[in-house]
Amino acid sequence: MEKHPPPWTLGQLAELLGGELAGPSEMTIRRLVAAGSDDPQGLTFAESPEYLELAARSAVGAALVGCGETGFSRPHIRSKNPRADFALLLSWSEPDVRLDEGAHPTAIVHPLARVDPTARIGAYCVVSEGCAIRQGASIHAFCHIGPRCSVGEGCVLHPRVTLVRDVALGARTVVHSGAVIGADGFGYAWDGTRHAKIPQIGGVKIGEDVEIGANTCIDCSTVGDTTIGDGTKIDNQVQIAHNVSVGRHCVIAGLTGIAGSVKIGDRVVMGGAVSVRDHVSIVDMVSLAGRSVVDADIVAPGEYFGVPARPLKEAIRSFLLLPRLPELFSRLRKVESEVLRKEKS
Amino acid sequence: MEKHPPPWTLGQLAELLGGELAGPSEMTIRRLVAAGSDDPQGLTFAESPEYLELAARSAVGAALVGCGETGFSRPHIRSKNPRADFALLLSWSEPDVRLDEGAHPTAIVHPLARVDPTARIGAYCVVSEGCAIRQGASIHAFCHIGPRCSVGEGCVLHPRVTLVRDVALGARTVVHSGAVIGADGFGYAWDGTRHAKIPQIGGVKIGEDVEIGANTCIDCSTVGDTTIGDGTKIDNQVQIAHNVSVGRHCVIAGLTGIAGSVKIGDRVVMGGAVSVRDHVSIVDMVSLAGRSVVDADIVAPGEYFGVPARPLKEAIRSFLLLPRLPELFSRLRKVESEVLRKEKS
Amino acid sequence: MEKHPPPWTLGQLAELLGGELAGPSEMTIRRLVAAGSDDPQGLTFAESPEYLELAARSAVGAALVGCGETGFSRPHIRSKNPRADFALLLSWSEPDVRLDEGAHPTAIVHPLARVDPTARIGAYCVVSEGCAIRQGASIHAFCHIGPRCSVGEGCVLHPRVTLVRDVALGARTVVHSGAVIGADGFGYAWDGTRHAKIPQIGGVKIGEDVEIGANTCIDCSTVGDTTIGDGTKIDNQVQIAHNVSVGRHCVIAGLTGIAGSVKIGDRVVMGGAVSVRDHVSIVDMVSLAGRSVVDADIVAPGEYFGVPARPLKEAIRSFLLLPRLPELFSRLRKVESEVLRKEKS
Repeated sequence: MEKHPPPWTLGQLAELLGGELAGPSEMTIRRLVAAGSDDPQGLTFAESPEYLELAARSAVGAALVGCGETGFSRPHIRSKNPRADFALLLSWSEPDVRLDEGAHPTAIVHPLARVDPTARIGAYCVVSEGCAIRQGASIHAFCHIGPRCSVGEGCVLHPRVTLVRDVALGARTVVHSGAVIGADGFGYAWDGTRHAKIPQIGGVKIGEDVEIGANTCIDCSTVGDTTIGDGTKIDNQVQIAHNVSVGRHCVIAGLTGIAGSVKIGDRVVMGGAVSVRDHVSIVDMVSLAGRSVVDADIVAPGEYFGVPARPLKEAIRSFLLLPRLPELFSRLRKVESEVLRKEKS
Repeated sequence: MEKHPPPWTLGQLAELLGGELAGPSEMTIRRLVAAGSDDPQGLTFAESPEYLELAARSAVGAALVGCGETGFSRPHIRSKNPRADFALLLSWSEPDVRLDEGAHPTAIVHPLARVDPTARIGAYCVVSEGCAIRQGASIHAFCHIGPRCSVGEGCVLHPRVTLVRDVALGARTVVHSGAVIGADGFGYAWDGTRHAKIPQIGGVKIGEDVEIGANTCIDCSTVGDTTIGDGTKIDNQVQIAHNVSVGRHCVIAGLTGIAGSVKIGDRVVMGGAVSVRDHVSIVDMVSLAGRSVVDADIVAPGEYFGVPARPLKEAIRSFLLLPRLPELFSRLRKVESEVLRKEKS
Repeated sequence: MEKHPPPWTLGQLAELLGGELAGPSEMTIRRLVAAGSDDPQGLTFAESPEYLELAARSAVGAALVGCGETGFSRPHIRSKNPRADFALLLSWSEPDVRLDEGAHPTAIVHPLARVDPTARIGAYCVVSEGCAIRQGASIHAFCHIGPRCSVGEGCVLHPRVTLVRDVALGARTVVHSGAVIGADGFGYAWDGTRHAKIPQIGGVKIGEDVEIGANTCIDCSTVGDTTIGDGTKIDNQVQIAHNVSVGRHCVIAGLTGIAGSVKIGDRVVMGGAVSVRDHVSIVDMVSLAGRSVVDADIVAPGEYFGVPARPLKEAIRSFLLLPRLPELFSRLRKVESEVLRKEKS
């Protein structure tokens, strides 16, 4: 759909979204706002009872609600899919952080790098020998594109991304600030007197439509490539070690650590601060709750949780009993003394 | 108080601090040193019996001790508040890392940015359109101040800080190297074939006198602002997700992760590597021990600990029983066989 | 040994390694490849039965195997120490990322910094007052070498390393991208109305042959130095707080956090995401499994695991019983009712 940036009138919005208007058609909406905002020119999104109540009590201009919400008291638009419609409005409201066309005069581009004329390269970037920057890619200030890297069509590298060397990014992949891709894997062998480094000569191959969070690290492989599949989304401060392979359309939340040579299937979801032990395999369609520890292969799809990760229901049962350990001890003590007493009697 | 940088004589120090001198007044003290140092021109700080003993056995020049320490054998100054006095001496000893006035010739400042003439901007900084840098702010080398950011009076941004866009820092806030503030929140909706990005158009609002550690990330909000209250101190490698609100005078230690839409009150303290689940609320005056996991609202002030976090005393009871699980099993086995034996007899 | 970069023939490789050739001597080997690769000009490494089978089923050119492997069906070289030989081949295959000699014209080197003429300094680096950069050191693009830092002979700083101030690196130490060394320690004292900062005036002293991972942070000491011993290897996103001392030849895996004033001996190994509480001491030759929490001194060498960390065998016993908590409760319930029943009868 064509992009319609704010401001809008409430009536115009209802029409654009194909929603049902309940309120003054001429009301001006200047921006999208968070639940609980009192902005009289703001539009908020309220789906759950909690957020509906919050919006109803606020002085917010209007709300976008579900089509069944008939009791909502403030101006609103009823939508069949309010969440998707709000996401659409968000995309129309996105702040512009576009770079100027071409390369900034302070960007240092190696003569043996190929840069598409439609690519944009920001201030103080370094693009090294043997790189390819494809059409429409945006590389913001301070990015370091090391030797033999390729940045696919339409990629966005936010300020201060480091591709160390031999990193390939598929089309439309987005990398956030501070991420380091292609640093050496952590491999040593004790030689009797010291930890001798095992050289890490491989690269990193990232698919299309991937997103990589701020300050996340993805190490290069010892040989071959560390790989991330198409459509996978990785949050901030995630650590992905050498030789790992992550499948397609996975979601990996912040502070998660994936150790060396782990193989992860497609559509795997990891909550925050999960740890996966080295050389473990995880099949497709596995979901891991936050702070789980995977220390053995997961061979069946489903939800998992805990330390070590086990099927969710089973894990929760043990988890809920943990606080009852003191009770367990005292009940056991009681039974023991009963038995002892009878013994004596 | 006026700043008196080293060197000092021991007598001069005793006078400046209003402490009681026990040792040669003319002894030269050139620097503050750690417990156990043998530096004959060093002054150490010893309050606990352990550190007093360590200092007594060392060859250190002198020590700053409590006013009740009459048995300490080496030269010393007795102080009513040795910890506060040592902090004062530390502040007098701070190494100078001041920038030159004005903007370094390599700094790129957008013509539509407002920079106070008393602000200092280091080498290879980028200050974007719509920014405001207020009086006395120091922005060290390689900082990236993205569109529409404001840096308050007297702020210090250490080398290589990234404010991505729409970030406001209150007065006297300090940000350490590698921190990334204002990157996109981690929001997607599965649309049947892929994780569709929910655009993140909000900003980040940081209060006054906040400190943010090295390589810490604070994401922008979906709409509105992710907020950090006045006086809050955040350690290194902390991850704060979109739509979070942290109160005033909190302390958050390293490697902690706070998931999306969490609300945290004032004076909350978190030990290292704590995890807080998304949408949870925590009231004022809560203290969480390191590695705790908060997976539900905390509605009463107090000390908490564990996975999941529970009131400290209660949690410790279970925690201490965990190592006794093998004992529990063997005692239960014994009781079972006793009962069985009687059954048969 | 002299460096022999690829390509090789299989026969030439067998001769160089002193291994036994089983296959066509004239086969061209252009590169080292990962297990499972089908590259007809690739050489892989297969030691375990699993990797031998993987290689046998693949179309890989050849494999490097142990000298006892007589049944392997594809072309191969048998070696007495295939792992060490493969590491040697890796070192011969390392991609060249050498900087040009001298300082890049965009590097800003303070007139009061001493830079050895054989050191190499990349684009957009800042080297501050009072620094010493010794012979053969390589400082890649965007590195920030703050005041009074020294970079030892043959050190390699990958792109975008920050030495904040007063950091000393011993000879041949390697620091990966995004690491921040020498930021302020996290020290405050509540003064009744706010967390007053305790100035952190010390430095960081790193030994020889140390390696420090991407986006890792090592804070400066309050006074004196945070220290890392010779030969220690630290992975990505590790947080090492102020006043910590780490011994020699330690190995610390990713996402580990070591709190303030911890003392760690020599040859200590930590798996990923370990947490060490402040002021704890750990003796030499301790090995900690991933995700362990050290909350008290470890006074004997050996393997440890768990929350809190305990001797490995003991800890595993409890760990394995955790999933059996539901069973424990139901067995106890049964015994209780038995005892009760008898009471009544």
